[in-house]
Amino acid sequence: MRAFVTGGAGFIGSSLTDRLLADGHSVVVFDNLSTGRQSFLQDAASRSAFTFVHGDTMDAGALTVAMAGVDVVFHLAANADVRFGTHHPRKDLEQNTIATFNVLEAMRANNVRRVVFASTGSIYGEASIVPTPEDAPFPVQTSLYGASKLAGEGLIHAYCEGFGFESWIFRFVSILGERYTHGHVFDFYKSLKADPTRLRVLGDGRQRKSYLYVQDCIDAIFLTMARARDKVNTFNLGTDEYCCVNDSIGWITEHLDIRPELEYTGGDRGWIGDNPFIFLDTARVRALGWTPRLTIREGVLRTLDYLRANPGLLEAGA
Amino acid sequence: MRAFVTGGAGFIGSSLTDRLLADGHSVVVFDNLSTGRQSFLQDAASRSAFTFVHGDTMDAGALTVAMAGVDVVFHLAANADVRFGTHHPRKDLEQNTIATFNVLEAMRANNVRRVVFASTGSIYGEASIVPTPEDAPFPVQTSLYGASKLAGEGLIHAYCEGFGFESWIFRFVSILGERYTHGHVFDFYKSLKADPTRLRVLGDGRQRKSYLYVQDCIDAIFLTMARARDKVNTFNLGTDEYCCVNDSIGWITEHLDIRPELEYTGGDRGWIGDNPFIFLDTARVRALGWTPRLTIREGVLRTLDYLRANPGLLEAGA
Repeated sequence: MRAFVTGGAGFIGSSLTDRLLADGHSVVVFDNLSTGRQSFLQDAASRSAFTFVHGDTMDAGALTVAMAGVDVVFHLAANADVRFGTHHPRKDLEQNTIATFNVLEAMRANNVRRVVFASTGSIYGEASIVPTPEDAPFPVQTSLYGASKLAGEGLIHAYCEGFGFESWIFRFVSILGERYTHGHVFDFYKSLKADPTRLRVLGDGRQRKSYLYVQDCIDAIFLTMARARDKVNTFNLGTDEYCCVNDSIGWITEHLDIRPELEYTGGDRGWIGDNPFIFLDTARVRALGWTPRLTIREGVLRTLDYLRANPGLLEAGA
Repeated sequence: MRAFVTGGAGFIGSSLTDRLLADGHSVVVFDNLSTGRQSFLQDAASRSAFTFVHGDTMDAGALTVAMAGVDVVFHLAANADVRFGTHHPRKDLEQNTIATFNVLEAMRANNVRRVVFASTGSIYGEASIVPTPEDAPFPVQTSLYGASKLAGEGLIHAYCEGFGFESWIFRFVSILGERYTHGHVFDFYKSLKADPTRLRVLGDGRQRKSYLYVQDCIDAIFLTMARARDKVNTFNLGTDEYCCVNDSIGWITEHLDIRPELEYTGGDRGWIGDNPFIFLDTARVRALGWTPRLTIREGVLRTLDYLRANPGLLEAGA
């Protein structure tokens, strides 16, 4: 098949692109390189089945032209920064909600009807049920990022009903692994590299979070697309465990063999809209036969090793 | 207080405006008159506490200027046409989702933090629980209209969390009563006035729907604002009954004393995305002490009498 990957130069997108190419598919990557990196597509670029289009999802015309002849769209491009939404509310609206509309309209113009969407566990806000299942009670959004992804999901649903689209919507926990360029492991490692004697921690360190290794995430996407064939297929993706921020700090500092003094900013939330407990119920995707290979600890350590081996990423970092 | 009413020249908005003025508040109506009518504001316009601003919610600058000095925003302006979303998908995105963002940003610029939002029971899609409570399982959208209102709700939630807003979100069933200008009573009466011998009915006539009288709706809004003071206050509004399309046809034709031949287009849905059963659980608003005064039948007949007394509306009709 011919796949179209928005955000295909990013962390998850480039990993997905490599896997698609390895499986014999052809891939068009559409990326504005705002956070994506062409270096992540070095291997891909050497293959004849690969095409790179430098474009922005806010440019509906460019999307429509680039999408000609594809069979399926993986829509991963997004402003993925859940923390700073209140600094620039328009960014989530444009890059997530309106961009998703543009992708769906470009699909309609090209008669492409299969779409995979990277949504988020943040869409549950502060869930009343933990671990949180896909059919949790109607949530209240706590971040502009979550709200923009909710809007994206709703648009996709309506296109499935109104225009005969098929969709696979994945509500991710935070993803870890090779090519990871932003998040707590990045921030902690960067800070500890500059000064291994102290570490500033947002909140009280007791926030409970879930993480998933990027290759496990991609396995789940491929397996689900093969086995779930409803009009709208929505799946949580995560491990069946969580850790607290302090656990992760322990793993990282032990691995680096350092003992920094920890300075907590205090409170049970790291920032406005931070969710003190993210843990998704993944029974639905497990019932299809998927199981993650790495634990959260293994994912954190693999990410750390990757960052140590690629010091250039820290300087340019998000 | 000084209230700002988007869509204040419309059916519900003008009724709300009259009630606010009668209660001694001052009101700024902001309306582009695309479906609203200045004739609905004839009484209001005679009062010194009333200001009309001819403007569009897509014009962020005009919204921001017009909103100066207000205490609360009633955001009712919307593309309210649930049926024809697939004919022009951009309309729901712009007039409902982006417009809501513009309203919230204008509020932020003016330091206004209380917002009332007209959402919809359509947001539940084809609900798995009927009567449907506010905390129903995470819904799948079946219309672009529902998706655009879901996006609006999510944005409002995020502004409450991120910027300290307070919100009252109302998920309406269809509203009936004086100044009603679109919906099934309008369509049926207009058709029967032109030809009382036959009536074309979308679907099989067995779709089960709920309706609420406009003054009952406004009572519920005022009472809820006084008694519910969470950050995000979400309430279903409807009667505790439903009727099927054929019931309503019976009431209308009996009232008009005619016996048209009924021609059904067939199927259990009137159009793509039509929900064959809308019935909201209103226990939450009833627990605050609200109860509607009119039954669905009384609301339908009052609407019919209004349309008969105002034949000019049919010609210009939506």
